[in-house]
Amino acid sequence: MTNDVKLTLEEVHATTTEVLKAQGFNAAHANAIANTVTAAERDECRHHGLFRLSFYVNGLHSGMASGNAQPELSQLAPSVLRVDAKYTFSNLSIAMGLEPLAKLAKEQGIAALSINNALSVVALWPEVEQLAEQGLVGFSFVAAAPYVAPAGGSRPLFGTNPMAFAWPRKDRPPLAFDQASSEMARGEVQLRLRDGRLLPEGAAIGPDGQPTRDPAMALVGAQLPFGGAKGSNIALMIELLTGPLLGDLLSFEAGERDTANTGAPCGGQLIIAMDPARFNPTGDPDAHLAHGEKLFEKILEQEGTRLPSDRRYEARGRTPSEGVTIPRSLFESLESLRQGHRPERHDYEGDQVLV
Amino acid sequence: MTNDVKLTLEEVHATTTEVLKAQGFNAAHANAIANTVTAAERDECRHHGLFRLSFYVNGLHSGMASGNAQPELSQLAPSVLRVDAKYTFSNLSIAMGLEPLAKLAKEQGIAALSINNALSVVALWPEVEQLAEQGLVGFSFVAAAPYVAPAGGSRPLFGTNPMAFAWPRKDRPPLAFDQASSEMARGEVQLRLRDGRLLPEGAAIGPDGQPTRDPAMALVGAQLPFGGAKGSNIALMIELLTGPLLGDLLSFEAGERDTANTGAPCGGQLIIAMDPARFNPTGDPDAHLAHGEKLFEKILEQEGTRLPSDRRYEARGRTPSEGVTIPRSLFESLESLRQGHRPERHDYEGDQVLV
Repeated sequence: MTNDVKLTLEEVHATTTEVLKAQGFNAAHANAIANTVTAAERDECRHHGLFRLSFYVNGLHSGMASGNAQPELSQLAPSVLRVDAKYTFSNLSIAMGLEPLAKLAKEQGIAALSINNALSVVALWPEVEQLAEQGLVGFSFVAAAPYVAPAGGSRPLFGTNPMAFAWPRKDRPPLAFDQASSEMARGEVQLRLRDGRLLPEGAAIGPDGQPTRDPAMALVGAQLPFGGAKGSNIALMIELLTGPLLGDLLSFEAGERDTANTGAPCGGQLIIAMDPARFNPTGDPDAHLAHGEKLFEKILEQEGTRLPSDRRYEARGRTPSEGVTIPRSLFESLESLRQGHRPERHDYEGDQVLV
Repeated sequence: MTNDVKLTLEEVHATTTEVLKAQGFNAAHANAIANTVTAAERDECRHHGLFRLSFYVNGLHSGMASGNAQPELSQLAPSVLRVDAKYTFSNLSIAMGLEPLAKLAKEQGIAALSINNALSVVALWPEVEQLAEQGLVGFSFVAAAPYVAPAGGSRPLFGTNPMAFAWPRKDRPPLAFDQASSEMARGEVQLRLRDGRLLPEGAAIGPDGQPTRDPAMALVGAQLPFGGAKGSNIALMIELLTGPLLGDLLSFEAGERDTANTGAPCGGQLIIAMDPARFNPTGDPDAHLAHGEKLFEKILEQEGTRLPSDRRYEARGRTPSEGVTIPRSLFESLESLRQGHRPERHDYEGDQVLV
């Protein structure tokens, strides 16, 4: 018996749906989460795949998240939509808001979608990629959970605050990136703790405010922004865009609210879509596509470069036929959850311990 | 006789206007540029102050820029405006587009302004600050001039590609940042060459693709993005937003067009404005203001931190009464230009030599 278990993507989706329903999510939420988890496994983004199910389940059992409230879509202004997630996980709210956002962006040229009161444990590339598959340019921003010290400071205040961006390409998947404004993703620090590996220089400080490479010290101290003061400015911008702008929580407020330490705190998310056909003054609605490719060619003709989404798309070419492998321990945890057993205690400590 | 000359801000504005008119700019362009230059001197952003006048003058005499074409405002979509700068410097076009953009953002919730065919040598904080002074959230992006290698690469391709962001504050100037997506601003590399100082590690590579701290090697090699692959993604995003999205030039194309090496290549600029009053679901149109202050307080209570615009505002408190000082050599160059003399040859090499 090997330590890995192989699953098809269909099995990933079915397992996720069944686990979530057995744990108390309604069908709509279970399906929306399963779509996200399956997309992550398909692209071999393991942090956001089946490994993440414990975050969803913990969030539900902690009482911090609802598994069946119905998100509500409304229009705040001619170019601004809102989905009130009503303290559910963001997956269904994003799915509900994305089509209306795309339609509005095509009418108005630029449009925004505000998502409020959502627990977010998802990657951001799926939604910007979906926008770009419809020919749009997409931004997405989310904050939450105070893990990162501002530049020059010594205590956690900002979230790891990722931003994503996608650009449409003709006859191939969009160019997309999705990056934390911290030097490292939270999950990567956790993985290094589990695996007994040191952090690189410059990624974290300990509770004493001094640089540390020890992931355990980093988790009780603070992570650092990427790129010094400039990355810290990006993190600050994302706090303002997803908290005060949307009338939602700042990361430190979300941390205060998450009394169960689910690792899935609640907050706002801002998604912006632009239609290049409404910007291009030449009258050729596809002029931007060939033009973007000129840039990508120039990048790739330099040895040592790659485009930001290439690794995911390479995986996407393989996994629909080859399936994905997960550790047997994770598979067994999922089987237990599918049978309706509550997660073991260590599953609850979202921020500290991995399945 | 000291080596510095003191000027009031009124004298800065008058000198700039007179120099530009004497060199061939019409009154509208001269005034718009003088506003920008004076704002930069007022905030002690020397790179964009009187020192920059040689870039404007060189751009005009090189034939790359027009000093009197009239920019044209149009509406591309319900939430998208455009100013065709007609190969003038961007200052007047931004001034023309900013009020209509602010008005549209208040109506629509979010709106964008595309500026095409503009030579840009300005800082971006003035326009986002102006938007935020009207209660809006502002973004600005500009590319142009291939100085920066993509992550992993070895040759210049991206511009130094700055982005700016501003957030409104009650009864005080906005929070604003304006940062290159290169590790260093171009002007800072030039200043270190002039002053015989080394670059920090990680800022540049030489023409051989190897790391260098020699500013002369950096100027003929390539600068590097800030924060590695993440900063490179930001630079890539800005190329796409200001080139293909707007139907304008990529940095490498702008470099090819700038056959006179004016250091002021031509391209697009994207400005986005959002009205927090149209996003906030609470119905209190000012809720975001107090909420943003909560974050700023949390940042500043950590020793060693500051807000991104604090240095500029500190200068702004002093210079209206105290004036600014400039090197006598610069003052004398400006006097010569004001009398209608053409700049000396070394003034033309915008990228390489400082006045």
